[in-house]
Amino acid sequence: MKTVKIGIVGFGTVGAGAAATLLANHDVIAKRTGVNVELVRIADLDITTDRGVTVPADMLTTNADDVIREADIVVELVGGTTFAKTLILKALNAGKSVVTANKALLAKYGEELFAAAAANGVDLYYEASVGGGIPVIKALQEGLVANRIQRIYGILNGTCNYILTRMEREGADFADVLADAQRLGYAEAEPSLDIDGFDTAHKASILASLAFGRWYGMDPVSVEGIRNISLTDLRYADELGYRIKLLGIIKAINGSVEIRVHPTLVPKNALLANISDVFNGVMVEGDMVGQTLFYGRGAGRNATASAVVADITDVAVNIANGCPRRVTFRENAQITAVTAPGDVQSRYYIRLQVKDTPGVMAAVTNVLAGENISISSLIQPETTGNDVVPLVILTHSAGEAQLRAAIKNIEALPAVCEQARIFRIEDL
Amino acid sequence: MKTVKIGIVGFGTVGAGAAATLLANHDVIAKRTGVNVELVRIADLDITTDRGVTVPADMLTTNADDVIREADIVVELVGGTTFAKTLILKALNAGKSVVTANKALLAKYGEELFAAAAANGVDLYYEASVGGGIPVIKALQEGLVANRIQRIYGILNGTCNYILTRMEREGADFADVLADAQRLGYAEAEPSLDIDGFDTAHKASILASLAFGRWYGMDPVSVEGIRNISLTDLRYADELGYRIKLLGIIKAINGSVEIRVHPTLVPKNALLANISDVFNGVMVEGDMVGQTLFYGRGAGRNATASAVVADITDVAVNIANGCPRRVTFRENAQITAVTAPGDVQSRYYIRLQVKDTPGVMAAVTNVLAGENISISSLIQPETTGNDVVPLVILTHSAGEAQLRAAIKNIEALPAVCEQARIFRIEDL
Repeated sequence: MKTVKIGIVGFGTVGAGAAATLLANHDVIAKRTGVNVELVRIADLDITTDRGVTVPADMLTTNADDVIREADIVVELVGGTTFAKTLILKALNAGKSVVTANKALLAKYGEELFAAAAANGVDLYYEASVGGGIPVIKALQEGLVANRIQRIYGILNGTCNYILTRMEREGADFADVLADAQRLGYAEAEPSLDIDGFDTAHKASILASLAFGRWYGMDPVSVEGIRNISLTDLRYADELGYRIKLLGIIKAINGSVEIRVHPTLVPKNALLANISDVFNGVMVEGDMVGQTLFYGRGAGRNATASAVVADITDVAVNIANGCPRRVTFRENAQITAVTAPGDVQSRYYIRLQVKDTPGVMAAVTNVLAGENISISSLIQPETTGNDVVPLVILTHSAGEAQLRAAIKNIEALPAVCEQARIFRIEDL
Repeated sequence: MKTVKIGIVGFGTVGAGAAATLLANHDVIAKRTGVNVELVRIADLDITTDRGVTVPADMLTTNADDVIREADIVVELVGGTTFAKTLILKALNAGKSVVTANKALLAKYGEELFAAAAANGVDLYYEASVGGGIPVIKALQEGLVANRIQRIYGILNGTCNYILTRMEREGADFADVLADAQRLGYAEAEPSLDIDGFDTAHKASILASLAFGRWYGMDPVSVEGIRNISLTDLRYADELGYRIKLLGIIKAINGSVEIRVHPTLVPKNALLANISDVFNGVMVEGDMVGQTLFYGRGAGRNATASAVVADITDVAVNIANGCPRRVTFRENAQITAVTAPGDVQSRYYIRLQVKDTPGVMAAVTNVLAGENISISSLIQPETTGNDVVPLVILTHSAGEAQLRAAIKNIEALPAVCEQARIFRIEDL
């Protein structure tokens, strides 16, 4: 049995999980693949903290170069986009294959990193970068290889999904649930990366790149997080048959790609609407396969380790069989055009607070009609004794530019009291 | 760019879909893989019927040997277990790799077929045999390779799921929905393979083999279909918070494997319970990844073609990179023991029709207590003017043997009027 040597850089939560998995399940991996996937070295600046996994003391080093020198596969689990980038390039240029879970790095520097892997004839694998333990990169790259990808909808951030699930289930406010999630360790002390949608955006960019063969980077990705979702909107959505989820949305329409991240109303009976708590789910639609969905834990030590070790094994099998770069991201630009934000078409949920006076409804609906925006349903709940009442409008598909123009005019109406709350709707 | 030649045997629905996909999406497959996957020959006894896909006349042949001679990869899509088996063995022995969608054949003769593939140093791929277009074989074999598999629950037969969905949604009887499904082409004129659970059983056996590294064949698989599911039971299940789905269930418990197929009560809020119509879904639980779920179309020309062409591409990439048998089923028997049916533990739903007389409840519950079967809930709906009333009992986990013994004694009670209706419950 051939041996392939594995070195990990970054002995934090995921690094420790990957090491533990390589050790605990070494036997089944060898039986299934015919390859001895052997952990030989782990580097971290801190090699004294107990990580909950027992490794021989001489396996640990504070010098990442030891890992690059001794391992056939270098596993980058330090995160961030500075040292991690240098490390990966150094490993690739030393002729070593690399496995990483670093979505921010790939989303930003994918093109450069994959060019370096190609130039050196080695592999760069990244299953854990999207969807945690869910093998969705492999599904997109191999399992659905026969398809032209049409749409991808992903619940890609466990923290956001956890917060939205609890808000809906408990009728609790965003701020309270966020604070509790922070206390429980489901949200970071500095939660912006998650709740403002950037983490989802990194992942959506990677999925779009895989689907359409070009590294889009972050520029074309429009991003809106979950801070502005109120209980009021969750309740109206519910009444109208929807849940609100933070989705990464990728669509190919008329030879142009749109990549966006925003809170989205999805029909309650759709599988995506039923993905709760910290779980992730990715719906991929291809021209042949139709709709598929991949579900699992999007984060956490062991689930992420499952994906990292799957990558390690895949690359090890390539090395053992002398076929590096058997499957890799190939720059082939099936679709290069990117849709400008103003040209994106969507259905909308609009909630207004309006004065309860005659003519308001006519004024609002006239503005929408003037922008050619058609109303699919409308609720004005019966209220008593209030001067200001809510008005909730669902539209048919309309252009973002038209919608923005209409909202500007609606907000200028004397009877409209607050900024409109606007969410997009996807009927999946 | 290297060229790999593809030949298809069986130009029926799936064969035509695979041919159409290879032709329509040839360009994206080449861009993604760097390999020219070229359809060169199609064999069928009938080469005159219009299959809805345009191929050059000289690509067609009535002689499967032409395909074996000319192709690098032979795609078996004739079905059945006689000619298909001979054909596959002939192709493997001629040094050709094979792609098949034939679940019955693999479930029965997997061991022999994979031995032949190994002896000849070629690939035998079968993604389309389970879950149609869902890349679940790849997920189990590669994406989750780092895990010890603990449980698999699969909705694996679209016909059964369609019938159950319509029964539940419309309050319609099994026989009526089956007749309508036959009229619409969702069920065969001879529906037994689907509705009696055998198709699901073939797929469950394949999944178990993949998960645990041994060809179990069909002998250890206990099978019960959906003929005996009544509207009454769907309604009580609903009242108790469950839906009834036909599941293939695979569990590894204490170093022993159980493989069974039967109608199962699953909690309504579980994702599996929300997989409707002809769709399939497979929940795989691994020790590291936790619960994952894979969802999509389990049948149909294009969805199945998506999986067949993914396999073709995978094998073609192996051939182009000189690494046949890079990933394959390896007989490694992680778990050889099989649990005897009587030893399987499960929760149960029991519906009795009992005479509305004093002491019935005591008599029934005494029998259960005597077999150490604990009741988790019980409904005796209020009825008026009926001599015979329903009694629905949900149990905690109990052994199959104990349950059978208890039911025998319960059915012998003078107050019990009909055969008990029994379904298993899985809380997922």
